[in-house]
Amino acid sequence: MDLASFIRTIPDHPKPGIQFRDITTLLGDARAFAYAVEQLAARFHNSGVAKVAGIEARGFILGGAVARELGAGFVPVRKRGKLPWRTLSQEYSLEYGVDAVEVHGDAIAPGESVLLIDDLIATGGTALAALALIEKLGAHVVGAGFVIDLPELGGMKRLCERGVNAQALCVFAGR
Amino acid sequence: MDLASFIRTIPDHPKPGIQFRDITTLLGDARAFAYAVEQLAARFHNSGVAKVAGIEARGFILGGAVARELGAGFVPVRKRGKLPWRTLSQEYSLEYGVDAVEVHGDAIAPGESVLLIDDLIATGGTALAALALIEKLGAHVVGAGFVIDLPELGGMKRLCERGVNAQALCVFAGR
Repeated sequence: MDLASFIRTIPDHPKPGIQFRDITTLLGDARAFAYAVEQLAARFHNSGVAKVAGIEARGFILGGAVARELGAGFVPVRKRGKLPWRTLSQEYSLEYGVDAVEVHGDAIAPGESVLLIDDLIATGGTALAALALIEKLGAHVVGAGFVIDLPELGGMKRLCERGVNAQALCVFAGR
Repeated sequence: MDLASFIRTIPDHPKPGIQFRDITTLLGDARAFAYAVEQLAARFHNSGVAKVAGIEARGFILGGAVARELGAGFVPVRKRGKLPWRTLSQEYSLEYGVDAVEVHGDAIAPGESVLLIDDLIATGGTALAALALIEKLGAHVVGAGFVIDLPELGGMKRLCERGVNAQALCVFAGR
């Protein structure tokens, strides 16, 4: 299935020169959504994945479905200040300034195998911050899956350099 | 399975007197998460559900998995300004002021059957706003599912008065 054909490109959003890749059109198509979930899970059925970590907010949609597909638990990786209990926090750089992602301190047990899921990888800042959080908890990232890779922004390369078994279902040139 | 036993109560969060019901401990347990998804989907396997609408952000986690379970597409109901394309917007009242939820104008086709999913129903403001959006698109809400109902806040009653086939998996007294 040509998943890329289900993704809507919105020119000059959120600012001039950016081609925004809108996955809501993919999510809304029952067959394309099912196929994306199956493909993100496919390589990990026998990897002993205990937890799927999904990155807020679009990573929740795919990550929840992938967790169900693999019979794993789900762990939300949230933006700063959104989780109600004790958290670990990891900052990452944005184009201007810094932001942070957080997980609950008891979300993942030491030694557990974790699959990281998000909708898109660009510079990889959020994914690398999530990776750092999971490793701080003593767990092991067995893989990372994305629907979209924007390779010119280098995030997939950075994840691979960190030894992460990372995969994207569609690749779009440009940013 | 006693799903309520997997939910963590955080006293006085986010403010004194509120017992916050934290579902991350349920989501993180593979069996409890699978059971919750199965229970939310169970009554709708033969209802011709074309789309599952999940409310940002925790409703994305459950809604994505329920959509996969039912072989339906997924529609994100997002907070104002988060969707990239043309939207319909519906305001709802908060304790102080108003907020709004939005869906893409092409997210649901007229006549489609939609299942609404969120983690919790309290006053029902968000769920009723989502219902209004789905109906504005000419679609039909065949049901609504929540993990938690706080019945003293009246949301479930309001949904039922609107004729919605609504269900919650756990009920907690108090707010």
